[in-house]
Amino acid sequence: MRLRGKRVKITNVRHVSAPLASEMSNAFINFRTMTTNVVAVETDVVRDGEPVIGYGFSSNGRYAQPGLLASRFLPRLEEAEPDALLDETGENISPQAVWATLMSNEKPGGHGERSYCIGALDTAIWDAHAKIAEKPLWKILSERYNGGAYDGKVLVYPGGGYYNPGKDVETLRAEMRGYREQGYRICKMKVGAAPLADDMKRVEAAADELGSGENLAVDANGRFSLEEAVAFGKAVEPLKLAWYEEPGDPLDYHLNADLIRSYSGAIATGENLFSHQDMTNLLRFGGMRPEIDWVQPDPTLCYGLTENLVMLDEAAKLGWSRRRFLPHGGHQIGLHMASGLQLGGTESYPGVFAPYGGFADDIPVVDGYVTLPQDQPGIGIELKPKLMDEMRRVLEMN
Amino acid sequence: MRLRGKRVKITNVRHVSAPLASEMSNAFINFRTMTTNVVAVETDVVRDGEPVIGYGFSSNGRYAQPGLLASRFLPRLEEAEPDALLDETGENISPQAVWATLMSNEKPGGHGERSYCIGALDTAIWDAHAKIAEKPLWKILSERYNGGAYDGKVLVYPGGGYYNPGKDVETLRAEMRGYREQGYRICKMKVGAAPLADDMKRVEAAADELGSGENLAVDANGRFSLEEAVAFGKAVEPLKLAWYEEPGDPLDYHLNADLIRSYSGAIATGENLFSHQDMTNLLRFGGMRPEIDWVQPDPTLCYGLTENLVMLDEAAKLGWSRRRFLPHGGHQIGLHMASGLQLGGTESYPGVFAPYGGFADDIPVVDGYVTLPQDQPGIGIELKPKLMDEMRRVLEMN
Repeated sequence: MRLRGKRVKITNVRHVSAPLASEMSNAFINFRTMTTNVVAVETDVVRDGEPVIGYGFSSNGRYAQPGLLASRFLPRLEEAEPDALLDETGENISPQAVWATLMSNEKPGGHGERSYCIGALDTAIWDAHAKIAEKPLWKILSERYNGGAYDGKVLVYPGGGYYNPGKDVETLRAEMRGYREQGYRICKMKVGAAPLADDMKRVEAAADELGSGENLAVDANGRFSLEEAVAFGKAVEPLKLAWYEEPGDPLDYHLNADLIRSYSGAIATGENLFSHQDMTNLLRFGGMRPEIDWVQPDPTLCYGLTENLVMLDEAAKLGWSRRRFLPHGGHQIGLHMASGLQLGGTESYPGVFAPYGGFADDIPVVDGYVTLPQDQPGIGIELKPKLMDEMRRVLEMN
Repeated sequence: MRLRGKRVKITNVRHVSAPLASEMSNAFINFRTMTTNVVAVETDVVRDGEPVIGYGFSSNGRYAQPGLLASRFLPRLEEAEPDALLDETGENISPQAVWATLMSNEKPGGHGERSYCIGALDTAIWDAHAKIAEKPLWKILSERYNGGAYDGKVLVYPGGGYYNPGKDVETLRAEMRGYREQGYRICKMKVGAAPLADDMKRVEAAADELGSGENLAVDANGRFSLEEAVAFGKAVEPLKLAWYEEPGDPLDYHLNADLIRSYSGAIATGENLFSHQDMTNLLRFGGMRPEIDWVQPDPTLCYGLTENLVMLDEAAKLGWSRRRFLPHGGHQIGLHMASGLQLGGTESYPGVFAPYGGFADDIPVVDGYVTLPQDQPGIGIELKPKLMDEMRRVLEMN
């Protein structure tokens, strides 16, 4: 039984660089040495007889920064007046106050690396915040930032179709078939690491397996020059793909705008932009069309949900609906955001980046949608016991 | 005596996070906990009976990332085939080959943090490269990237006028007077951390002390909103300042372009953009005028000289002369670049960020210009004995 009026305190923050290795490759990198930030925020609040602990991790594709947390960011939390990290009631942590403390004495610009480790920490803070409030995170987001509205089910799509050693078109077909059997409708595959003719064989086979190009998205991971991006666009245009993702360098807004002038289908990009300033530039200068294109920030990589809320507000000022946002990364926080803020959907990584990818173990995918945990407070990492075990193991909490 | 034909090898890389603390503040941060990356690249080449060692550090205002070097970047160098890091002769290290090795398996976008530690390491690689070639770095840059042309003297301006506790207008005047006595012509001061009326008293006093606003640059360190930036611009416009630096967030190209529509004087910005992609966006979308504005990348923060050379090439494609570039940071590598590549000049930090700031101890500033070491191979950190001692001390090389 909690004593109302008790002022909350963060008692400890654990963090580690955890391996996230696999033999996969996309068009830019392989994942043999990949790591991720894993963070646990321990509090002095007790729920069900146990201290509340918030958990977070940063997404795949970027490496961990434990040294930045240890040397720079956590000392700021430790030096802060504990009450300055609380919300107005004093009974819960304020994610915004924590964020501002972490970013004190940081210069503007240079949004990379620090945004990943802060993203993992911010995720753990939100998990703790929701657990202290005894609500699932989606419900808090709905009540606080969406007038109480939410989506009971969320469109999810597997980010798959990677290049693996020895993987051929038949293996790719089998992978796509597997996603359909798991209940997915739209599926994504990697392109850009093979010659165009070879990639087209892969793309056509996947589209065929999924019944139509409209169920297939392709992801070039920023590999293409403008000429390559345009050529690829011309080749796939007749397939009416769900979208064509990250054709060129994520910061090459000029390329993106030029490509869009020659490609009538939907473009999706933004997973490698890590601040609201960068995302605003994409929307202002990248030729993106608010009625058909998609924006894909990864909350755990761009300074966390806290910064993502700012990003959505800034995008709204430029005429962008939240429905055009699809959080990258295939993790539970993206799912909570998609439901509570009514985004367009979120990526999913069934069987990829295990155990970090995927949602709650016992929630099935039905016709491309998943529902959300109704009662589990926080983000619900506890509903993925293998992930919970792995995070506690690497954090030496067992 | 060196054996010609011997294949060079990097034998060790030392690195550390070194304190760069001071009581100064700009409009955004204070420097009490500031650190910098210090790197030494040891080789098996012998010159004057000693093994050649290249030294580098990253610039002030961004913190160190020793964990990223140790966990991610140096293992890539260690795993590389040693010959793959050499130039076509095999007798010297290739900075470009080292850079490509460091950046393998890195995703595009997210240019911050990793760009600072790689910048320090790239600086040490160039220092070693020039020492092995037995030439000052400016000469290598001139011969290889500038058709043999170079500037015998380089315009330098002190980046001073910081906010310090208890510092008043008279102290600021004395500081500016001191720069003039040291031989500087154009001087820079910080603005944006005080109300406009107070800042204007500071600016007018400094301009008066320097004889004219044309000898004064002001630096807001990205602090202003558009409204504040425009108001400040209107207030200082009659002074015809040398330039008005980093008015708004470094990534807010829209703000920069909007401000430029209402401010007729020169704008300078770019020190917080850390890749050629970001810099290209500034030049494309930021309203910058190639005939009067200035671009100020910091080579040690944006992945080093290697990436800076790409940046200058990309800028040239957009019609920007190298003369419009003024490297930020007040360190020797910026000076070598300014001479050998014939840039517009470079910042200087006399007495600030000691011992890292400043050029060779025995080269005076004359009417705003400095000359370069003619014979000292490399970047010439050896010509700053206090810096050399400090770097060797923090690297535990004494």
